[in-house]
Amino acid sequence: MRWLRFTSEGRTSYGIVEGEQVAEVTGDPFAGYERTGRVHPLSAVKIEVPLIPRTFYCAGLNYTAHIKENAAAIGATPDLPKKPDIGYRANNALIAHGQPVVIPRDATEKVQYEGELVVVIGKQAKHLSESEALSCVLGYSIGNDVSERNWQKSDRTLWRAKNTDTFKPMGPWIETAADPGRMETIVRVNGKVTTRFHTGDMLFGVATYIAAMSRYLTLYPGDVIWMGTDGSSPNLKAGDVVDVEITGIGTLSNPFVAER
Amino acid sequence: MRWLRFTSEGRTSYGIVEGEQVAEVTGDPFAGYERTGRVHPLSAVKIEVPLIPRTFYCAGLNYTAHIKENAAAIGATPDLPKKPDIGYRANNALIAHGQPVVIPRDATEKVQYEGELVVVIGKQAKHLSESEALSCVLGYSIGNDVSERNWQKSDRTLWRAKNTDTFKPMGPWIETAADPGRMETIVRVNGKVTTRFHTGDMLFGVATYIAAMSRYLTLYPGDVIWMGTDGSSPNLKAGDVVDVEITGIGTLSNPFVAER
Repeated sequence: MRWLRFTSEGRTSYGIVEGEQVAEVTGDPFAGYERTGRVHPLSAVKIEVPLIPRTFYCAGLNYTAHIKENAAAIGATPDLPKKPDIGYRANNALIAHGQPVVIPRDATEKVQYEGELVVVIGKQAKHLSESEALSCVLGYSIGNDVSERNWQKSDRTLWRAKNTDTFKPMGPWIETAADPGRMETIVRVNGKVTTRFHTGDMLFGVATYIAAMSRYLTLYPGDVIWMGTDGSSPNLKAGDVVDVEITGIGTLSNPFVAER
Repeated sequence: MRWLRFTSEGRTSYGIVEGEQVAEVTGDPFAGYERTGRVHPLSAVKIEVPLIPRTFYCAGLNYTAHIKENAAAIGATPDLPKKPDIGYRANNALIAHGQPVVIPRDATEKVQYEGELVVVIGKQAKHLSESEALSCVLGYSIGNDVSERNWQKSDRTLWRAKNTDTFKPMGPWIETAADPGRMETIVRVNGKVTTRFHTGDMLFGVATYIAAMSRYLTLYPGDVIWMGTDGSSPNLKAGDVVDVEITGIGTLSNPFVAER
């Protein structure tokens, strides 16, 4: 099942994507829903961020090639995480499929994408074992963890580098029937493939992260976990369009523009 | 004006504290409210976290003595932040005034408090100058940034060290008439003063942080900014009660218990 959050006729609702149409519901996929009977053409609605997370978790470094290439780029020794220590991103930066990423006037040329699998939590959970960890997952979406690499080095935290307004495209929807073990992530800049990797090639997988996190913290419906990225990105500039496709989910597409 | 979020007769509402009573309202201090006419004795209601933040910002290192003492404790050179780079904490860890901080079974003896001023954002804001920065502030509350110092060293992020469930007491209320420049922060363990500092002695003050942040990010009603702490804390153990008083706001008090 494919959950879209959308606006039509001034009303924001959840809906179920069925082919080229969206069946509108009352309620939401977390607390329960009922079909309204209204159906919209997918092409006619405004796509919204699939949810505003309660807590916005992000694995950060979680694919070997990305860590090695990042370290090489700054002349450092690659330091592979030894355990699943989760990190965070910020809600202010979220934008929906199709909305523009705005590059700040004072950003350097090193604005880059990171195509990431997004895990959407559907049920409250604590103390889950690895074998039961996926029972709290509602489904999967796609994220682009846009980053300004020079700010990432110069600032004490990742606030500007990762959480500038518009730097966190997420969507287009939540797919409940996906299997992270069988996905491929394909990133295109202006239609040309620039990065491609097996989504499941993580240092620590979804179940491992959820089990480790839920030992100390309660996961809530509407929390999201961004699972990190592999490979590297070219520098992006105003006018570029970045598509992050994850097979079995869909494609998250966003244009990049300059701050006025 | 002093805004309390509370539960009475199974209903959670905002109210205005007037002496020893709470005047219940419909709505909230952000979007607007109306008095219901119902008044409760303050001692008879269950105090809730004053709000669930939209984004939970935290300045981290923001007082000179705290940074120097922390560095000395691990044999490092103190590294004073050169600019206001904001950090983050997580909503799962929030608890209200009076609720217990639960020390995990596998925590080391180095569980410590950090008494902090909490800034509550009341209005959407971007691109504020330092002189207009405080115009988006609704009021102030109190936070205890409970930390496990060994996890703070061993983990790649602060997730367990700072964001274990119950590690972020906040409250008891939001005070709109407070002046950070004239406050004192006083922390007591089991009634005995263990830390005392001028709340305004920050490296970067509230207006400086808000101006810097709002250059890149939009602040929203219901965001909070924890402003950091000064001094150091003794190690805390099950059975201790920690009171964080900030003059002009009130006292946030929480018992510490052991995980069962």
